[in-house]
Amino acid sequence: MKFVKNALGRLVPDEVNGQKQIPFKGVGKHRPTGRKHAPMISSCIDYPADGNKMLTSIKDALKKCGLKNGMTISTHHHFRNGDLVAQMIFDAAAELGVKNLRWAPSASFECHSSLIKYLEDGTIRHIEGSMNGALGRFTSEGKMKGIGILRSHGGRYQAIQDGELKIDIAVIAAPTADPFGNATGDRGPAACGLLGFALADSQYADKVVVVTDNIVPFPCIPWQIHGNYVDFVVKIDKVGISEKIVSGTTEITKSPDRLLLAEWTAKFCDEAGIIQNGFSFQAGAGGTALSIGIYFADILRERGMKSRWARGGSNKYLVKMMEDGLVDYILDGQTFDLEGVRSMRENPGHVNTSPFTSYNYHGKGNFASMIDVVILGATEVDVNFNANVVTHSDGCLLHGIGGWQNCIFSKCTILPIPLFRDRIPVIRDACTTICGPGELIDVIVTERGIAINPLRKDLIAKMKNSNLPIKTIKQLKDEAEAICGKPDNPEFTKDPVAIIKWVDGTVIDTVWKIKK
Amino acid sequence: MKFVKNALGRLVPDEVNGQKQIPFKGVGKHRPTGRKHAPMISSCIDYPADGNKMLTSIKDALKKCGLKNGMTISTHHHFRNGDLVAQMIFDAAAELGVKNLRWAPSASFECHSSLIKYLEDGTIRHIEGSMNGALGRFTSEGKMKGIGILRSHGGRYQAIQDGELKIDIAVIAAPTADPFGNATGDRGPAACGLLGFALADSQYADKVVVVTDNIVPFPCIPWQIHGNYVDFVVKIDKVGISEKIVSGTTEITKSPDRLLLAEWTAKFCDEAGIIQNGFSFQAGAGGTALSIGIYFADILRERGMKSRWARGGSNKYLVKMMEDGLVDYILDGQTFDLEGVRSMRENPGHVNTSPFTSYNYHGKGNFASMIDVVILGATEVDVNFNANVVTHSDGCLLHGIGGWQNCIFSKCTILPIPLFRDRIPVIRDACTTICGPGELIDVIVTERGIAINPLRKDLIAKMKNSNLPIKTIKQLKDEAEAICGKPDNPEFTKDPVAIIKWVDGTVIDTVWKIKK
Repeated sequence: MKFVKNALGRLVPDEVNGQKQIPFKGVGKHRPTGRKHAPMISSCIDYPADGNKMLTSIKDALKKCGLKNGMTISTHHHFRNGDLVAQMIFDAAAELGVKNLRWAPSASFECHSSLIKYLEDGTIRHIEGSMNGALGRFTSEGKMKGIGILRSHGGRYQAIQDGELKIDIAVIAAPTADPFGNATGDRGPAACGLLGFALADSQYADKVVVVTDNIVPFPCIPWQIHGNYVDFVVKIDKVGISEKIVSGTTEITKSPDRLLLAEWTAKFCDEAGIIQNGFSFQAGAGGTALSIGIYFADILRERGMKSRWARGGSNKYLVKMMEDGLVDYILDGQTFDLEGVRSMRENPGHVNTSPFTSYNYHGKGNFASMIDVVILGATEVDVNFNANVVTHSDGCLLHGIGGWQNCIFSKCTILPIPLFRDRIPVIRDACTTICGPGELIDVIVTERGIAINPLRKDLIAKMKNSNLPIKTIKQLKDEAEAICGKPDNPEFTKDPVAIIKWVDGTVIDTVWKIKK
Repeated sequence: MKFVKNALGRLVPDEVNGQKQIPFKGVGKHRPTGRKHAPMISSCIDYPADGNKMLTSIKDALKKCGLKNGMTISTHHHFRNGDLVAQMIFDAAAELGVKNLRWAPSASFECHSSLIKYLEDGTIRHIEGSMNGALGRFTSEGKMKGIGILRSHGGRYQAIQDGELKIDIAVIAAPTADPFGNATGDRGPAACGLLGFALADSQYADKVVVVTDNIVPFPCIPWQIHGNYVDFVVKIDKVGISEKIVSGTTEITKSPDRLLLAEWTAKFCDEAGIIQNGFSFQAGAGGTALSIGIYFADILRERGMKSRWARGGSNKYLVKMMEDGLVDYILDGQTFDLEGVRSMRENPGHVNTSPFTSYNYHGKGNFASMIDVVILGATEVDVNFNANVVTHSDGCLLHGIGGWQNCIFSKCTILPIPLFRDRIPVIRDACTTICGPGELIDVIVTERGIAINPLRKDLIAKMKNSNLPIKTIKQLKDEAEAICGKPDNPEFTKDPVAIIKWVDGTVIDTVWKIKK
C-alpha cells in the first residue's frame, strides 16, 4: 500500500483490502469508463412455480445461499437502532463457523456494537458502511482487521452498481412481505416506512434473502422490494424493536442558541430569494432542522405559497406541511417517525425514494442537485469550507456519511452549526477528516455570524444589505479561538483504519489510527 | 445458416441475422449460464444539474444519442393502434439518412403499416418484436431484408436483460413526464395506464429518450419510468390518438357460440375446483374472455367469496369486480379501456406491473406460474395440444405472441376456441407454427366439446362425473374435419422469414416464406 496526495492534498492509500483505489480528483473530474456490475442470469427453473420461497431460519437461508469464508453480507439500516436482524445473521454465521466476512450495511447504529465480538473473533473481517458509536471507536483504535470503507448513501449505490462492492448475500429485513419475496416497509408491526436503502442490494447481490415477521398472502402491495430479485424468504418472530425504529430527534429544539441558528438560516433563505412558490428543500430531522422547517411553513402559509417538493427524512412536521397543502410532494428517503410511516402509507404524494433516484452520482442525473436548498450538519468545517461529518476533533470515527455528500450538490447547501462544542471550536484551520470539498458548501450559519463561501458571489451580492451578521469564515474561526483557544490536533499513527469515498468512488480522505 | 430439429421436431436455424441461436430443448430444459447485460456506467457530470434534459425535437434527440447505421431503436406499444411516435422516429431517421436500423417494438399494430416504406427503402432492416397485420403479411411474403424475431412480452424482457437484444436507443412515448424524464402512463391527454413494456428498455438501453405531449414540473408522480435512466426528454404536440389507445374489445360477446364457450369455461373452472376463496385468474380482454369474467364475478358474489388477485389487461368489468370487493388486487400489464386507466390512477390495489415482475423467465421466479387459471386464445391447436398464436392456417404471420407464452405457465391454462373459423378447422394434426408446447396447455374448450390434456390426470379425474361434454382432442379434430373436410396445409418456400423464440431465448419454431 502506497500513499498519494489527492486533489485536496489529503494522503490516501492507492490500495485498500486488496482493491486498487483512485484518489479524489476534484468535483466532477472523475469520469467512469466501465460497465455496470452484471449479476448472473437466473432462471425460473430454479425457483418454485407456486412462488413460495419460504425457509424456516436465517441459518438455513445462509446455508442455501452458499455462505463461505470471505463472502460479503449486506444489510440495510431502515430499522435504525431497533434492528434485530444483523445480529441474527452473524450469530448464524458464527454458528456455521464461517470466518473473514465483509459486512456491508447501509449504516450501523449503536445497537450493532454487539457485533464487535465477531470483529474480534474473526467472523467479520471488516465493515464497508458506516462505523458509528462503539464500532467507530473500535475502528479508530485500529482493532478492525481490514480497513473500513465509508460511503455516502449515494456512494454505496454507486459502488454496488459499478461492481466495486460485490455483495454475495443481501439480507433484507422487511416489516411485511409475501412468500414470493415482495416486501414493504410501510406496514407491519415493525413498520419503518420504506426499504430504499436495500434497493441496490436486491438488484445486484448474487443471493437475496428477505427476512420478515409479517407474512401476507401474495401480492404484498406496495412491493418496495420486488420478489423477482429474491431467492429466499424467512419468517422470524421479530425483525425490529418498533420504539427504537422511529427514534430520530423528532422534537423541535428548545435551546436558545439552536433556535437562533434556525431563525437565521430561515431568514437567510428568505433574503437570498430561495423561498419562492414552487421551491424545494431538505431540512433533515435534527432539532435545529425541524425548527427551520417550521419557519419555512410559516413563511409559505403567510404568503399563500407552497413548496413543490421536500426531501425527507420525513417527520410529523413535514407531513403536516403536506397535509396542510404547503408541500405538494415529499420525496422520502427514510421516515423518522410514525407520522412519516402513516403518511407514506396513506398519501399518494408521499413517495418512497432510493439512493438510486436521489443520490447515485453514476446515474443519468439524480435529485440531489435539483433541490433549491438543503440544511445539513457537520462536526468540523475548515477555512476553505471543507467539512467533516465522520470524525470528531479527537480523531475518533463516530458517524457515517449518510446522504450528506450527496446532498451538498444542492443549489444552496447551508450548515447551521454551533461555533464550538464542549469548548472545542467547530471552525478550524483544517478538518480532521474531509468528507466534502468546500466548493460545494455555500453557507455556514453559527450563533455568532454567517459566512458565505466566497465562490458564491451571487449569494454575497444578494445579502449585501442584509441585517444578518454576515462575516468571513476566518472571522468566525478567530472568534471561536478567542473564546476557546486554538484547539489541539488529535494525534494519529501512520496506520489507516478507514477510507472515505467520494460520491464517484474515488478516495477523498483517510481515517487514521488514533494514538492512545 | 444451418437448420436443426429442436425438441418439438421443428426445423429451426442455428443462426439468425448473424447471431447464433439455441434450438428449443423442452420446457425448463435450458439453463442460462452467463451474466446479465451491463449498460455503460453514466455520470452526473454529463447531465444537467438542474435536471432539465429537454430537447426540442425527436430528430435532435436521435442525433444527440449518436444514431448511426445499423443501430437498434426500441419503442413500446402501450398506445396500441393510436401510437404516433414510432412513425415520427423513423421519419426523423430517414431524414437523417440513416440505414439498416433494427426496430425492436414491444409490439406493432395496424397503425405501423405505414413503416413498410422504411422497410422497403432500407431505413429499417428488420423488426424484432411482433409483425402484425400488414407488417406480418409483408414479412411472410419474404420482403423484409433481415429475419424477424418474435418474442413474448416476457421473452423480450429476458432478451434485453440477457444481452441478446441490445438496444442502442430506446424511445419511450409517455402520456406525462417531467423535464428530468420521470414518466407515467396513468394521466395526460394520451393516458394509456402504464408503461411497463418500456421498463427493460429504460434499464438496459444505451440511450433513453422520453417523448411526451404533457410536461409537468418535477416530480412526475407516479414515476413508472425513472428519470435516472433517461438521457433526453422531448415535448411534442401529440404522442397518441386517445380513442385508438383504448381500443381493445371491451364489450362482452353477443355471439351464442362465444357465450357457450364462456359458460362452459366458467363451469369447467367451477367443477374443477379452481374457483375458490382467494383464487387468482387472468381472463384477457376479448369478448369471450370478458364474458368468462362476468361468470366468475357472479359465482364469487353468490358464494360470498373473493379473488385475491387478477391479472389485467384491465377493463371496466375487472375494475367493477375490484370496486365491488370481489377482487383484492389487479396486477395489470396493460389497461384496455379508460376505466382501467382511471382505476390504476385511483385505486391503490390496481397495481402496474411489467414483464419483469410478471413474465421474465430469467428472473428469480415470476407471477405467471403462480396464477390459478388463465384463459387465452389460439389460431390453431394440434392433437398434442401444441398451439399457435402468430400465424393463420394460410401460413401468414398476422399476430404477435404477447404474453401468451408466459401465461401458459399458469396452474391451469384454458383455450376457449371455436372448432373452426371460416370453415377451416382450428384443431389440426399439426400447427402451422408452434408457439407453445402442448405440455403447458391444459384444456381446450370448443362449442362441440372440451378436451383435457391427458397429462392432467388430476383434472380428468375431477371432471369424471361432469355433465360438460368432455371429449378427446382427437374426437374434436375428427368432428371439425367431418364438417369442414381435412384442411390443406399452406405452402412454403425453404426461406425462413422469422423465428419464434421461447421464453428462455431458445428457438421454438420458424416462420417460412409463403408461396404466392
